[in-house]
Amino acid sequence: MRLSPLLAAAALFAAALPAQDSRAEADAQMLRRIYDTALDGSPAYGQLRELTEQYPGRLAGSAALAGAVQWSEQLLRQIGCDRTELQPVMVPHWERGAPERVEFASGGARTPLSALALGGSVPTAPAGLTAPVVEVTSVEAVKDAGVQGKIVFFNGPMNPRYVVPGQAYGEAGRQRGQGPAEAAKHGAVGALVRSLTHALDDLPHTGSTTYLPDVPRIPAAALSTVAAEKLSAALRADPALQVTMQINSRWLADAPSANVIGEIRGSESPEKVILVGGHLDSWDVSPGAHDDGTGCIQSIEVLRILKALGYRPRHTIRCVLFTNEENGLRGATEYARVAGEKKENHLLALETDGGGFAARGFNIGNAAGDAHLKAARFKPLFEPYGVLIFQAGRGGADVGPLMAKGNTVAGLIPEAQRYFDIHHTRADTLDKVNQRELELGAATMAALVYLVDQHGL
Amino acid sequence: MRLSPLLAAAALFAAALPAQDSRAEADAQMLRRIYDTALDGSPAYGQLRELTEQYPGRLAGSAALAGAVQWSEQLLRQIGCDRTELQPVMVPHWERGAPERVEFASGGARTPLSALALGGSVPTAPAGLTAPVVEVTSVEAVKDAGVQGKIVFFNGPMNPRYVVPGQAYGEAGRQRGQGPAEAAKHGAVGALVRSLTHALDDLPHTGSTTYLPDVPRIPAAALSTVAAEKLSAALRADPALQVTMQINSRWLADAPSANVIGEIRGSESPEKVILVGGHLDSWDVSPGAHDDGTGCIQSIEVLRILKALGYRPRHTIRCVLFTNEENGLRGATEYARVAGEKKENHLLALETDGGGFAARGFNIGNAAGDAHLKAARFKPLFEPYGVLIFQAGRGGADVGPLMAKGNTVAGLIPEAQRYFDIHHTRADTLDKVNQRELELGAATMAALVYLVDQHGL
Repeated sequence: MRLSPLLAAAALFAAALPAQDSRAEADAQMLRRIYDTALDGSPAYGQLRELTEQYPGRLAGSAALAGAVQWSEQLLRQIGCDRTELQPVMVPHWERGAPERVEFASGGARTPLSALALGGSVPTAPAGLTAPVVEVTSVEAVKDAGVQGKIVFFNGPMNPRYVVPGQAYGEAGRQRGQGPAEAAKHGAVGALVRSLTHALDDLPHTGSTTYLPDVPRIPAAALSTVAAEKLSAALRADPALQVTMQINSRWLADAPSANVIGEIRGSESPEKVILVGGHLDSWDVSPGAHDDGTGCIQSIEVLRILKALGYRPRHTIRCVLFTNEENGLRGATEYARVAGEKKENHLLALETDGGGFAARGFNIGNAAGDAHLKAARFKPLFEPYGVLIFQAGRGGADVGPLMAKGNTVAGLIPEAQRYFDIHHTRADTLDKVNQRELELGAATMAALVYLVDQHGL
Repeated sequence: MRLSPLLAAAALFAAALPAQDSRAEADAQMLRRIYDTALDGSPAYGQLRELTEQYPGRLAGSAALAGAVQWSEQLLRQIGCDRTELQPVMVPHWERGAPERVEFASGGARTPLSALALGGSVPTAPAGLTAPVVEVTSVEAVKDAGVQGKIVFFNGPMNPRYVVPGQAYGEAGRQRGQGPAEAAKHGAVGALVRSLTHALDDLPHTGSTTYLPDVPRIPAAALSTVAAEKLSAALRADPALQVTMQINSRWLADAPSANVIGEIRGSESPEKVILVGGHLDSWDVSPGAHDDGTGCIQSIEVLRILKALGYRPRHTIRCVLFTNEENGLRGATEYARVAGEKKENHLLALETDGGGFAARGFNIGNAAGDAHLKAARFKPLFEPYGVLIFQAGRGGADVGPLMAKGNTVAGLIPEAQRYFDIHHTRADTLDKVNQRELELGAATMAALVYLVDQHGL
């Protein structure tokens, strides 16, 4: 193979360092080998195909998730982990049942609306629930909206002006997470929520809602953004129109599941752990390609790359595929509990759960709030790969319990604009994942793992 | 609207500047307004839909390009340009004719291969051309490959190890650009070229090839990467197999076309121009969404945003939609010639022709080689928008002739991994463009235009 311009650039970069810093040169060369290994002949995309095609709809308690647990442990064995483990976790078990139905009746005509019950929603009566509708655009607006006996329609769009879509998701997402309970508190009998996406299309996005103790649990569903616009227009024309919603869900007893763990044992300080992980579960309607099949496959790929390079880590490198991120976080909670019990020391817990798009950087957090500044010393090494962002953050949901126990955490920051187009929908499929973006993300994670293994954080 | 966290961040950033630098605060606020205007209610995506759906296949000489010229000038008038112009350009006129056919015969069986004639290819005889095949993986390999009387099959893949796909495209692309002529020089009768993409699929990618004076012009076509792999495997099994290729193209007389120009006249120094542009033509088989419908629509959107904000530029802001980038560069050449004749002074010529993906930065070039360093003083203003790269470069093909005349040029750098999946194919369609990425690119261009208008470069 010809010497690549980027390899030459990396060599130049290394050559420009002070002579005493031959370590930096070795690091630059190792990063180049990590990226080469990820970009040339990686099995990652094929593995993601298997996961999403064989085990779509990996919701907690499902047969698909149970199958994916077995499949991914087998894969971790195949790539040569020194140890694999299925860490038992009991998970909530909610099923959607027969497809939901939402429609409105106005002037004698019935108009169906594309909808998905929110995860955890209680069912309606078998014949459905029919009531007039009150439209609001925030959780706060419920209390003065006169919702008694009505269905509350939360129609606040994601703010298009935020450059980072996750900020708009967090803000508008309160309608989904807290809206139905708030509506119930004020006497509403059902809730509809505009899907959390910037896209205007007919694809409904599900996701969790949270009920409150001592407040009635009311049925709740997401409408596609097109359906939300349609209902909103119809309400302007006929404020007295009635919506019928029929949800056929059920809650079952907690089900057995597991965090899937595989590791390469550290050669110097095996008791110290560097964790990479994602979550293996997905929403029931979704193949879970970007959320979070890519995070899982990339985490496995980190270990494969380091094995392929014959790298002997100083500390234990551990891949954790968490169970039940979507509707309970039981996997993350249990992992942190056991780690605390065993007094395990995590040098870093790096999560990827923002989609398998092109890697742009990391968010990094610790109790002192200075971990991202420490990590920024690695920045020049990442520049040849377009990985330029090192900012303060909290990693992600699955490493949250570890951070709460004082560990340093991080989250890969991928390019973010496309994620919420398909998040929590049936359209979160393999074809939305670009093979090279998947591979570059894995290499970027492996590079940080290597640097923390060598130099700490 | 609530104060957005990013607006707050921008305000904080501005507040952190020295007191004497109230200009920087004004600039930060102007950039925020530019991005808000682009992200909230922009017509750009709808315009791109019109362009790609009404005028797909805008190759030089086509009715589609002629229609797009009229359509886009009309659009520039509608957004309130002070002046629009169709700058006449005579362009080459090549037509593909009836669909090409490529197949190989081995052991009595005929296997069809997905192919597209290269742009500019001469036709075969009506019945086709049948010959044995020699496979090579570089232009250099031709001279020793014994190609006399044969079809040369250029099968060198794009190097997956380059992080920036454009580098791999440039390297492997020599097979398409120079391979057929080199093969003809050594007596070959035809050429097949592996499509220039990292993707392994059955989608052929066309593009220009260049014949040489005094060397026979031989028919040349691109094979999909799947077809290339298939042919390569068949050749290993049967080195004597014969390929039949049938190309029905024709060259016509040069046709009239035009660069489409619209501008907002400068209030202080109207004779000094800041140019934004893309190319309006596309390959005949392609709707030309990312290549380069997005660059055109974003360039128009730059002017719309500045008009919408009531901004009165000091210098003339000019949008140029170049004709005939794909197979001649006649539009860019003519534009630079006329600009030279009129002694126009271009402060900056900013091109976008790398796809309408998320904006990551700029490449910037001038004769002294220091323009990117000067532009880097704007970097803190772009950080809230994730625009982090300010590197030396040559803008792009259409501003090349302007750079050669001593002007400063720039090119928007979008996220690059997905571009060559669809480049020069029938799959370069609107659905591959993300609305917010399109808008963010336009805002990023408008921001640089504003800053150069205020502060020079």
